[in-house]
Amino acid sequence: MYVIVVYDVGEKRVGKVCKFLRRYLPHIQNSVFEGDLTEAKLEAVKAGLNKIMIYDEDSAILWAFRDSHFSDRQILGTEKKPVSNFL
Amino acid sequence: MYVIVVYDVGEKRVGKVCKFLRRYLPHIQNSVFEGDLTEAKLEAVKAGLNKIMIYDEDSAILWAFRDSHFSDRQILGTEKKPVSNFL
Repeated sequence: MYVIVVYDVGEKRVGKVCKFLRRYLPHIQNSVFEGDLTEAKLEAVKAGLNKIMIYDEDSAILWAFRDSHFSDRQILGTEKKPVSNFL
Repeated sequence: MYVIVVYDVGEKRVGKVCKFLRRYLPHIQNSVFEGDLTEAKLEAVKAGLNKIMIYDEDSAILWAFRDSHFSDRQILGTEKKPVSNFL
């Protein structure tokens, strides 16, 4: 499956979420991960995020597509390298 | 078309980008917009972002899909209301 994940979590958990997601997906922008995952790994990602996140304060949105059949994917501006000091 | 937009821009331009994108799409998380757009409006969004953004410093990623046929869309944690003081 083709997956996009964005998150908005408390400062204390940003590094933890980022480090966790890096085990599964390429980090393409601050707080944004994108790539291919099996259905089982997508479930692992959700379970892992639910463990790290604080329900009332944090938020993550995951979109999963059968394949990467988007009609357009475009980067405007610079393709930012994920900032390492976010870890 | 079903469109997801994420951006990471310099602090001075965050409000401007946010205000601009709100004219076209629902604001679903800090720096994330999502919704339906005609192809013409998608082009207007790209053109507008390119005008506001500074090429070397800012970044935005746009995914466009023929329709919202994702197999899964899930929000973990709280469905954050966009923070109004970001404007």
